[in-house]
Amino acid sequence: MIFSYKFGKPIETGAVVDFDGIKEAEFEKPRRFSLLEEGGGFCFSLVLDDKAAVYGLGENIRGINKRGWRYTSYCSDDPFHTESKQSLYGAHNFIVIDAEEPLGVFVDIPGKITFDVCCERSDTLKIITEDGDFYFYEITGDSVKDIIRQFRVMIGKSYVPPLWAFGYQQSRWSYPNEAAVREVARSYREAKIPLDAVYLDIDYMEGYKDFTVDIDRFPDLGALSKELKEQGIHLVPIIDAGVKIEDGYDVYEEGVKNGYFLKDKDGKDYVTAVWPGKTHFPDFLNSSVRRWFGMKYKRLTDMGIDGFWNDMNEPAIFYSERGIKSAWEKLDNVRGKNVDMSNFFAVRDAFASLSNSEDDYKSMYHNMDGEKLCHHKVHNLYGYNMTRSASEALAEIKPNERVLLFSRASYIGMHRFSGIWTGDNQSWWNHILMNLKMLPSLNMCGFLYIGADIGGFGGDTTRDLLLRWLALGVFTPLMRNHSALGTRNQECCAFEGQEEFRELIRLRYRLIPYLYSEYNKANDGFEMIFRPLMLDYPKDKFARDVEDQLMLGDEIMIAPVYTQNAMGRYVYLPEDMLLVMFDSSSSFKTEKMKKGHHYIEVKLNQLPVFIKKNRLLPLCEAAESTKELDMSRLELIGWVDEGAEYILYTDDGISRDDKSKRVIKLSARGSEIKTDCEAFKAYDGGIVFE
Amino acid sequence: MIFSYKFGKPIETGAVVDFDGIKEAEFEKPRRFSLLEEGGGFCFSLVLDDKAAVYGLGENIRGINKRGWRYTSYCSDDPFHTESKQSLYGAHNFIVIDAEEPLGVFVDIPGKITFDVCCERSDTLKIITEDGDFYFYEITGDSVKDIIRQFRVMIGKSYVPPLWAFGYQQSRWSYPNEAAVREVARSYREAKIPLDAVYLDIDYMEGYKDFTVDIDRFPDLGALSKELKEQGIHLVPIIDAGVKIEDGYDVYEEGVKNGYFLKDKDGKDYVTAVWPGKTHFPDFLNSSVRRWFGMKYKRLTDMGIDGFWNDMNEPAIFYSERGIKSAWEKLDNVRGKNVDMSNFFAVRDAFASLSNSEDDYKSMYHNMDGEKLCHHKVHNLYGYNMTRSASEALAEIKPNERVLLFSRASYIGMHRFSGIWTGDNQSWWNHILMNLKMLPSLNMCGFLYIGADIGGFGGDTTRDLLLRWLALGVFTPLMRNHSALGTRNQECCAFEGQEEFRELIRLRYRLIPYLYSEYNKANDGFEMIFRPLMLDYPKDKFARDVEDQLMLGDEIMIAPVYTQNAMGRYVYLPEDMLLVMFDSSSSFKTEKMKKGHHYIEVKLNQLPVFIKKNRLLPLCEAAESTKELDMSRLELIGWVDEGAEYILYTDDGISRDDKSKRVIKLSARGSEIKTDCEAFKAYDGGIVFE
Repeated sequence: MIFSYKFGKPIETGAVVDFDGIKEAEFEKPRRFSLLEEGGGFCFSLVLDDKAAVYGLGENIRGINKRGWRYTSYCSDDPFHTESKQSLYGAHNFIVIDAEEPLGVFVDIPGKITFDVCCERSDTLKIITEDGDFYFYEITGDSVKDIIRQFRVMIGKSYVPPLWAFGYQQSRWSYPNEAAVREVARSYREAKIPLDAVYLDIDYMEGYKDFTVDIDRFPDLGALSKELKEQGIHLVPIIDAGVKIEDGYDVYEEGVKNGYFLKDKDGKDYVTAVWPGKTHFPDFLNSSVRRWFGMKYKRLTDMGIDGFWNDMNEPAIFYSERGIKSAWEKLDNVRGKNVDMSNFFAVRDAFASLSNSEDDYKSMYHNMDGEKLCHHKVHNLYGYNMTRSASEALAEIKPNERVLLFSRASYIGMHRFSGIWTGDNQSWWNHILMNLKMLPSLNMCGFLYIGADIGGFGGDTTRDLLLRWLALGVFTPLMRNHSALGTRNQECCAFEGQEEFRELIRLRYRLIPYLYSEYNKANDGFEMIFRPLMLDYPKDKFARDVEDQLMLGDEIMIAPVYTQNAMGRYVYLPEDMLLVMFDSSSSFKTEKMKKGHHYIEVKLNQLPVFIKKNRLLPLCEAAESTKELDMSRLELIGWVDEGAEYILYTDDGISRDDKSKRVIKLSARGSEIKTDCEAFKAYDGGIVFE
Repeated sequence: MIFSYKFGKPIETGAVVDFDGIKEAEFEKPRRFSLLEEGGGFCFSLVLDDKAAVYGLGENIRGINKRGWRYTSYCSDDPFHTESKQSLYGAHNFIVIDAEEPLGVFVDIPGKITFDVCCERSDTLKIITEDGDFYFYEITGDSVKDIIRQFRVMIGKSYVPPLWAFGYQQSRWSYPNEAAVREVARSYREAKIPLDAVYLDIDYMEGYKDFTVDIDRFPDLGALSKELKEQGIHLVPIIDAGVKIEDGYDVYEEGVKNGYFLKDKDGKDYVTAVWPGKTHFPDFLNSSVRRWFGMKYKRLTDMGIDGFWNDMNEPAIFYSERGIKSAWEKLDNVRGKNVDMSNFFAVRDAFASLSNSEDDYKSMYHNMDGEKLCHHKVHNLYGYNMTRSASEALAEIKPNERVLLFSRASYIGMHRFSGIWTGDNQSWWNHILMNLKMLPSLNMCGFLYIGADIGGFGGDTTRDLLLRWLALGVFTPLMRNHSALGTRNQECCAFEGQEEFRELIRLRYRLIPYLYSEYNKANDGFEMIFRPLMLDYPKDKFARDVEDQLMLGDEIMIAPVYTQNAMGRYVYLPEDMLLVMFDSSSSFKTEKMKKGHHYIEVKLNQLPVFIKKNRLLPLCEAAESTKELDMSRLELIGWVDEGAEYILYTDDGISRDDKSKRVIKLSARGSEIKTDCEAFKAYDGGIVFE
């Protein structure tokens, strides 16, 4: 049951699309909460007992159980995802309280909101909004799982990428020119490490201008794209939110002419600086701007591009004209005087504090289809609407073909238009675990096409870190290795012992039928792909406590190694399972394991997969790209004594409509394997235990 | 066997004091290493097999096994101890390679040195010195343990603090005045949470001038000290390395007059700025300066102070005159022009990059008893010699009484003069584990009196974080809760549910006979107090892999919980042990556990201790301060079937000589408990299993 409470005059965010199950509440306030008005906003508080867990909040630091910290939704470009942080790039205001009477809460507010999850006081949840205009949804249900499902129905189905977006993808800030991109492709193909995409970070553009290509470095992007696509490799360029201020640059000139940019309080185009230097930000909350900007992507799709990543759309700001002015003023006050302790820190921070300044967000204005709105109040909708702009236009530009699209900033609702990557993480071992923990939290909030920068974006990776991270990455829908300027080269081919990289990534390709099937199954059924164990085993107290293993789809459980120099790890089995320990993409050992606590050894070249009893994991043959995958010949693995079935969801991996969609039943009993579909009759080496 | 190799003209650091076992090598280079000259320094490299582990490097990030990262010894004031960092506050150039033929290496070099422990290449250890003047010691032995013992003998015994330094200590930057200090003492005593010390951070001084007291805020420090000491509470003030430049300030004037400060290349006193604003740094490498500065501590000991922490002695620099000048020059180049992307980052970082600049370290000069030396070349000796200065003077000032002394910066050799705390950590869960991992690494390098800021220095702690951290802190010799300006109050009394804090800290006091005894035993025998399991169980492959449990002394193993919201943890028992699960300081349950892997539940108020079979853990009664502890009445806990003995080392906890030292044998067989000492004949409630 979903009750909606309207506070003030909410801004329509588009997060909720299915209102069928929602009742407007007749009560004055959400029943279980105490309510206080505080400085224009509200504070909802609820005392929780010791054992209650709180899930949700999407892209955030800390545990799957969010208890014990405060989280603020205010999309932030912050590359140091430590335990102290309160905001990352996304704003995902959905939580589920796992108490005796479970309760879901979604606060549909585009401005700042804080969830103090038993941080200030260890027994009290507080939800604090900065302003008074929002919808508050209270969702009750039989179980946490049921509540999440209701929420997912309410916000609508998720974006589905093309099949090739499930292949391995290689990125770096930046491959500087055609030769460098070709070299990446060549080195992967030569090492026989599968690859489906190479990314173009900001340096492919001419002067960091959106929808331009630097022809000195990329003389013929169309030809390069074609050449690589023949090898099964897609080029994926970045698009930034800021539009360079430069006379003669059509995007800038059209934007100015049509009043398409964010304004200052006097109605002048607001000047910020990002990669290109001075920029204006398109007003993506305006539908005309969305269509105008979105149709610009055609310039790149016309060159054969079929994948994009939208970046810097919190929006990130290096500095603004307003900010620089105030910084010089601070310095002028000191000039002539000595810099000493009384002013050193002020001077030092005068420039350093300009980036992503809330003062700028408070000084910019939108025209939301006629209504003037301060950006600060709708801050969390910006990246969402930039990506909606791209998505809606691409549906028009390529009506018969899915395009890969994901964004850095996000808000619930954007999950219908694209995926996300989880931003500028670091080459830290604890970020493997953070990556894992975000997966179910994001799934709850609707985001299915997700992944982190494998190997870590900032800082130098090491060979063992990259291998262990890949062993989680083989399971994430977006499997991309990306690293920052100035860091060590992080492509698999940059390290000794390439065989271990090759075999792990080949294994990913073998898993694609399963990953793709479970992705679509979860989407159609409003389920999560990645689930904490507590969701499937709510009565098992050990399962409730597990924060480093996940259920993946209906058949398997994953438990990656995420500590350096470890020879293995502990794992909890909530039921009997078959451990399949892959030594390579083609060889594995199995072990029947009982429900309970276990220690498993996992070498750097190994990948453990736990298959539930009487369930089946389908595997295809590996290939160098998804284009080469033959998903009609599947090997099945499982520990089957009663007989088992696997329902494979598949399609042509390209079309936007459902015409190519197929649901195929694979069944196993003893050593006999059956399918209900002619095209899938060929099986090879199925391993089934009785 | 220890071989010494002399390269160039080494600076005598004083790290090594026992030369008896050391042979000057007749070989040209350390035999197992390849050697290359590189830009004035040397690179020693050694290929390691997959299974070789590398221990050591003292205060550093990452694992007990240091494999998989590069570490640079260059004492650094850096408050963000993330996995990316290469230098913290200490320089501890000792490693042991745990391979088929184990090997120890100590490089006695006071300048920069990097240990690339299989980071660049996953199979190669590289040791790279920046200059060519150093001693390289190669230590061979039967085992890792044996090599560490040889090294410890070579560098001499460690500092021993007074007994009260084993009590619980409360700190904050800063308790602003007498009233605030009294309030801390009052609140602990009222809550019956034991307390032995309250710290005075920088604000007790007048204008941050060393050896002054701000009489507005602390009108009579002597009286305050006396009043608190009657309650069993010691005051511990901070001393900073930098001396304020201020006419009339005697320390400054004497230093200038006698030429006691670091100079620039032209011989002028070098001007830096730290807390007081402009400062000079005493030239602690000069013996006259050490005596002069050290004797100043008498001003505080005369007020009854008997504990000090030396800080900012890497030395930390906020900025220098040289730096400020160059920053303004950068800005002047931009002034008049627009700040844009071509110069924004340079402008932004002009001031921000001034702190702890290597350019300053390269611009300062020492007079090391006659020899002029660039600071950069001897950087890592600075904090060590500041603390040696204090230690030597305090031995003169208080010849019959031990003084609490610890430092932030350090070098091997300083362990003979003081302890260290591990600097400005954060209120992060992963810093509990970092705290644990540093303990054995520091012990190997001679540092026994050690501890981290419990609850975390930077950032806001939470109640659960503080409780779990205290549950490790009860075992560390220095048990201090400390937090930074601007963070949430972190005293135990600031949180709800004080009983759980009280019981944990009372338990600490019950453990003091054991902790104190094992401290002195380890020191006398050149052993480590905290040991990774591999050291005691070198043939047990699971023990070799454990990075989150430690052997503590000869009797017990510890395994704290370090993840948020966890109901327990996995633990590996390398032999049969008795789990003693304390629910409070006075109640516990025991469980006989078999060698192997286990999951144990540990509630927030619980503390698990594992006692080895046929070993005994002595406990005294809890008390509000160490002054009240009665260590002659001990309860013994153990799982004894053959009979067991515990050798208690004790003394009066005060004297510098050994006259009060006693070694007492406690033995148990069945329910019979014996002691070989009259004064220790009373036992109470001994729990012994047969």
